[in-house]
Amino acid sequence: MPKSHGSDIDALIQLLAKLPGLGPRSARRSTLQLLKKRDSVMVPLAHALMNVADKVQICEVCSNIDTHNPCHVCEDVRRDRTTICVVEDVSDLWALDRSETFRGQYHVLGGTLSALDGIGPDDLTVDSLIERVRGGEIEEVILALNATVDGQTTSHYLAEKLEEFDVKVTALAHGVPVGGELDYLDDGTLAAALRARGSVSS
Amino acid sequence: MPKSHGSDIDALIQLLAKLPGLGPRSARRSTLQLLKKRDSVMVPLAHALMNVADKVQICEVCSNIDTHNPCHVCEDVRRDRTTICVVEDVSDLWALDRSETFRGQYHVLGGTLSALDGIGPDDLTVDSLIERVRGGEIEEVILALNATVDGQTTSHYLAEKLEEFDVKVTALAHGVPVGGELDYLDDGTLAAALRARGSVSS
Repeated sequence: MPKSHGSDIDALIQLLAKLPGLGPRSARRSTLQLLKKRDSVMVPLAHALMNVADKVQICEVCSNIDTHNPCHVCEDVRRDRTTICVVEDVSDLWALDRSETFRGQYHVLGGTLSALDGIGPDDLTVDSLIERVRGGEIEEVILALNATVDGQTTSHYLAEKLEEFDVKVTALAHGVPVGGELDYLDDGTLAAALRARGSVSS
Repeated sequence: MPKSHGSDIDALIQLLAKLPGLGPRSARRSTLQLLKKRDSVMVPLAHALMNVADKVQICEVCSNIDTHNPCHVCEDVRRDRTTICVVEDVSDLWALDRSETFRGQYHVLGGTLSALDGIGPDDLTVDSLIERVRGGEIEEVILALNATVDGQTTSHYLAEKLEEFDVKVTALAHGVPVGGELDYLDDGTLAAALRARGSVSS
């Protein structure tokens, strides 16, 4: 084991290498960059991490991860309170909210039903979703789960669960991604896009 | 600006995006990962950063960056004290030391001479290198600068400067990288490898 630097620096490299997108090589590069920019990046990053770690919690309403509870989405009075968009993971919530198309509420399931992995409804936040819908204010539930087998199974399960309530249950449209080339799309997507074709207004 | 999370989390994403290899997208993914692994990654990473930031300093002997001064390399009594390997940057020192071939001393120049960027000998650690050689213990100086125009110019400059001392001045060999295919190599490398060809012992 070469010792061109101390074990503290080694420990830092090991931890950075755990981040997605950073392998051992880029963790070393990042560490060097941090060492060289001690005051402008390293110390602020340490403080930012400590600060967020102190405050991070799971929103008791929608299970979003945030520094507030209820989270910024649930707290925002300008957002529509009659629509809930159900997503698998916090990353999906962030992605949808970046698109700035949806200004309603969210509900983070925490995964999908999966017989293989032994994940049932009790492992997800299904009950709290039902409770929110039972509350009466909700008019539409948008199922924005991934277009995978497990995601679609979970969508069907939730749609059935929600049948007894007076809410509209919708799902994201399937189709050609914007900017996508037909030649590169799989048959399933093309078939779905054809089935869901719409008239062109001129 | 969507507000699916607090400004503290935003600040963390911005800082992580400054690391080499992490763009805005992977900084967001990393942040989410950190939020989900608060106790196992986020808090240890914050402590590791703080710990290293407190201790980091530049070695007064060789200009390596380390948590010790003199650094781990200069402090190590098992290393050969008669050979100095001159490198441009700390990253080169780390890379050479990982190869575990060289067990002597290092000297970090801090860059290369560059007329275009206005970098002269006074901006580099040339004087402290001369002082180390003047000390008398050194028998060989290995110039391990990059094979760029600036790197080679700096090598020539240093070789001239070192002429007055009784030391051997050497440079890294040029040639075919181990595992490299001739077809993909540039003409300059091939020419250098041909010129420096050696006899095959059998």
